[in-house]
Amino acid sequence: MHTPNVLTWTETWRLLLLAGAGLGVLVNTFQGDGAPLIASIALTCISFAVAFSMIRWLGPVFIKAGLKGKDMAKPKKPEIPETMGAVCAVVYLLSLIIFIPFAFYKDIVAATSGGGNRDVVIGDQHIETGRYLHRFPHGKLASYLSGLLSLQSVVILGIGDDLLDIRWRHKVLIPAFASIPMLIVYFVDFGVTKVVVPVPLQGYLGDFIDLGWLYYMYMAAVAIFCPNAINMLAGINGIEVAQSLVIAVLLLFNDAMYLAPITPYPHPATDSHLFSIYFLLPFIGVSAALLCHNWYPSKVFVGDTYCYFAGMVFAVVGILGHFSKTLLLLFVPQIFNFLYSTPQLFHFIPCPRHRLPKFNAATGLLNTSVTEWTIPPSPFIAWILDLLHTLRLVRVTKDKDGQIIESTNLTILNLWLVWMGPMREDTLAWHMVGVQVLCGLLGLFIRHRLALLVFNSDNRTLQFMV
Amino acid sequence: MHTPNVLTWTETWRLLLLAGAGLGVLVNTFQGDGAPLIASIALTCISFAVAFSMIRWLGPVFIKAGLKGKDMAKPKKPEIPETMGAVCAVVYLLSLIIFIPFAFYKDIVAATSGGGNRDVVIGDQHIETGRYLHRFPHGKLASYLSGLLSLQSVVILGIGDDLLDIRWRHKVLIPAFASIPMLIVYFVDFGVTKVVVPVPLQGYLGDFIDLGWLYYMYMAAVAIFCPNAINMLAGINGIEVAQSLVIAVLLLFNDAMYLAPITPYPHPATDSHLFSIYFLLPFIGVSAALLCHNWYPSKVFVGDTYCYFAGMVFAVVGILGHFSKTLLLLFVPQIFNFLYSTPQLFHFIPCPRHRLPKFNAATGLLNTSVTEWTIPPSPFIAWILDLLHTLRLVRVTKDKDGQIIESTNLTILNLWLVWMGPMREDTLAWHMVGVQVLCGLLGLFIRHRLALLVFNSDNRTLQFMV
Repeated sequence: MHTPNVLTWTETWRLLLLAGAGLGVLVNTFQGDGAPLIASIALTCISFAVAFSMIRWLGPVFIKAGLKGKDMAKPKKPEIPETMGAVCAVVYLLSLIIFIPFAFYKDIVAATSGGGNRDVVIGDQHIETGRYLHRFPHGKLASYLSGLLSLQSVVILGIGDDLLDIRWRHKVLIPAFASIPMLIVYFVDFGVTKVVVPVPLQGYLGDFIDLGWLYYMYMAAVAIFCPNAINMLAGINGIEVAQSLVIAVLLLFNDAMYLAPITPYPHPATDSHLFSIYFLLPFIGVSAALLCHNWYPSKVFVGDTYCYFAGMVFAVVGILGHFSKTLLLLFVPQIFNFLYSTPQLFHFIPCPRHRLPKFNAATGLLNTSVTEWTIPPSPFIAWILDLLHTLRLVRVTKDKDGQIIESTNLTILNLWLVWMGPMREDTLAWHMVGVQVLCGLLGLFIRHRLALLVFNSDNRTLQFMV
Repeated sequence: MHTPNVLTWTETWRLLLLAGAGLGVLVNTFQGDGAPLIASIALTCISFAVAFSMIRWLGPVFIKAGLKGKDMAKPKKPEIPETMGAVCAVVYLLSLIIFIPFAFYKDIVAATSGGGNRDVVIGDQHIETGRYLHRFPHGKLASYLSGLLSLQSVVILGIGDDLLDIRWRHKVLIPAFASIPMLIVYFVDFGVTKVVVPVPLQGYLGDFIDLGWLYYMYMAAVAIFCPNAINMLAGINGIEVAQSLVIAVLLLFNDAMYLAPITPYPHPATDSHLFSIYFLLPFIGVSAALLCHNWYPSKVFVGDTYCYFAGMVFAVVGILGHFSKTLLLLFVPQIFNFLYSTPQLFHFIPCPRHRLPKFNAATGLLNTSVTEWTIPPSPFIAWILDLLHTLRLVRVTKDKDGQIIESTNLTILNLWLVWMGPMREDTLAWHMVGVQVLCGLLGLFIRHRLALLVFNSDNRTLQFMV
């Protein structure tokens, strides 16, 4: 049986120890002002343990329910459970919900002592002026809840997609629907649609420009892009989860730079980045648990649900944490992959149903997958393909008449195989992790150093910008 | 083909007209102070049209995805799509999300005029004191969002149940998990855990008693009971949706009594009941759409998802609207069904996998279904069964030795068949609707008239109680 569904004794003890330690720490954070960051780390450990066990246990149940898929890049093409990202997502959502009182413990204490306690028989004129309530940060709570709502929406729609095999052109819009709660609460509760203008343009546009509804379009675009970008860089064991983990860890690193002692408190952006940390830590926990099962050789598949869910986590922290531009700098490989794919997405070049690299059973290595030109390309497309071939951005095969009969599929994975030659599936995944890390670090360097060339200041060091 | 998946021309035009009219009204509510109630009614019409069409269109897709079931109470046992409640629920959730700006339009206008507009460069000390924000009712928004979160949670877990066939003892707890967001936000944001003491006990306990964490247990119990109660009164075409619709309409009727001109504004409970109306109206819309397809003879099944979802809608409005006791008065048939079932639930009497009435293909009528006593009952159980048989609360069959060999299953549907004799499936459903309406009206009468015997006042007429 290729999907044993019990934990080994070693695993059981380690997970129990981890979850127990997490629980102990968690309970102890209910002291003084509370320690939300510690509580979040503890919840992350518990989430890891729960997600790890649930994924193992639920394998056969998922297979029985028909949620299964064949791993085509293995000699025996084993059938393994699919859509396991949904389990991750549910554990994650529950841990974020349980975290709410920890996040606001200090405020609850403040609001319920010294006359803050609302009484049932209090005159309603007092309630309406909010005199007793002003110390509780309802805006932050609403923002947190709206992020949760968007994540839950994407999970519901993602499960629907995994079940019903929604068509490509409808799928793309799933994150758009899911981002509605976040955007609506943003509209109702914040409505900040001004952005800082780069210095060279300030003479023309002023220091700030109010983008109005364009800003909502921009946020929706970010929310649509992130999940689909992760869904597009897929096809080999572990790649979806690994890239998401790298992005999450780099975002966490960026967030940590806004915390004391690195940045003196109170800094206006500290709260936004704490918000981001609270969303990212449990995500890292459940994703790590999933990766243990999904890394080469995969015991489970993650499903579209995971890709949408992961992308939406990034969109939520980027948008509600007000650092969506920084976020996009960490998506450089995904953006490249998307742009590189466009000729196939818009059918200038034929697009087969699956473009993942092709497994060669004889060598055990992955080769590039190709588009077959049953009808030869038009002279213009042929010229472009020849040019790209010369630049080593694609590999074309010609017949004896010089007609193009095959060209490699336009994905970053195939391009890497064009450059590096056939390789093992896990080697390719490791290489992609390396690319993601390097691009991400470069992106953060650009964000905090080179951006000073076009903006007045890095918001990490100066107080007056949020 | 027994599930045609296209709308007829008549249906198309009627639905387009309905949705178009709804949309027109909706857009026009963005005037003056806004008209949230009108907007909610308009959204209800649109939700009905969307849900009606989606259920029709998605039938074959659901069947292809394996979401299907056999209707055993029909001569041909047709196979029809299952879990269609999930479609309803998604349409409902989306309409509640889209409703947010309409619900708070007046407050948005108030908060963004006259210095209420937050500026990006405003000093953070101003933000923290909330001076610019106090007019926006963040508490209400948080409460609305927490209700939405709980509903989304129950939908995710309900779909999981429908897919994975979760065991009975785990299923019961699904609403408990789903109620966590609501209870946590209640804790963080309101914390009102005092209840009015009935007059005869006020001498001992005071006018109010603070139940503390017991109140949270009570709310969790309500949230667990409502969904499971609806899930338990099931088994014939249309019964789940019909009972939910009756309860929703009666709740709406109760809410309407707190609105002007019936109750003078401002009344402290008006806002709670408006909140309830906003949640109930679109629910009635999508449920009516589902009932069109699910009423005898069913073209689709609703799935556990619908039962959990419907029950959670009631739990959310009852808890967040502060009228959970009134809510329970509308659940009298469900409470009776639950209590009547307990001997089987706790296995004092054997409990077969399904207890729904049995279809007699020869007559086309539904008969009572029975438990077979392969091992004769103990003398005590036999005595109880004999007593119940005499009281006509159960029907037992004995062999020639006087040993009980069969007894009817303990559900309200079987009891009704014991009393009224075999009947058509739709007649039974109509009878149940009648029972639900009568019990509900009686319950509301008790709530507003007889409760005055043990409480000082009906909160509909007096100002000082919330």
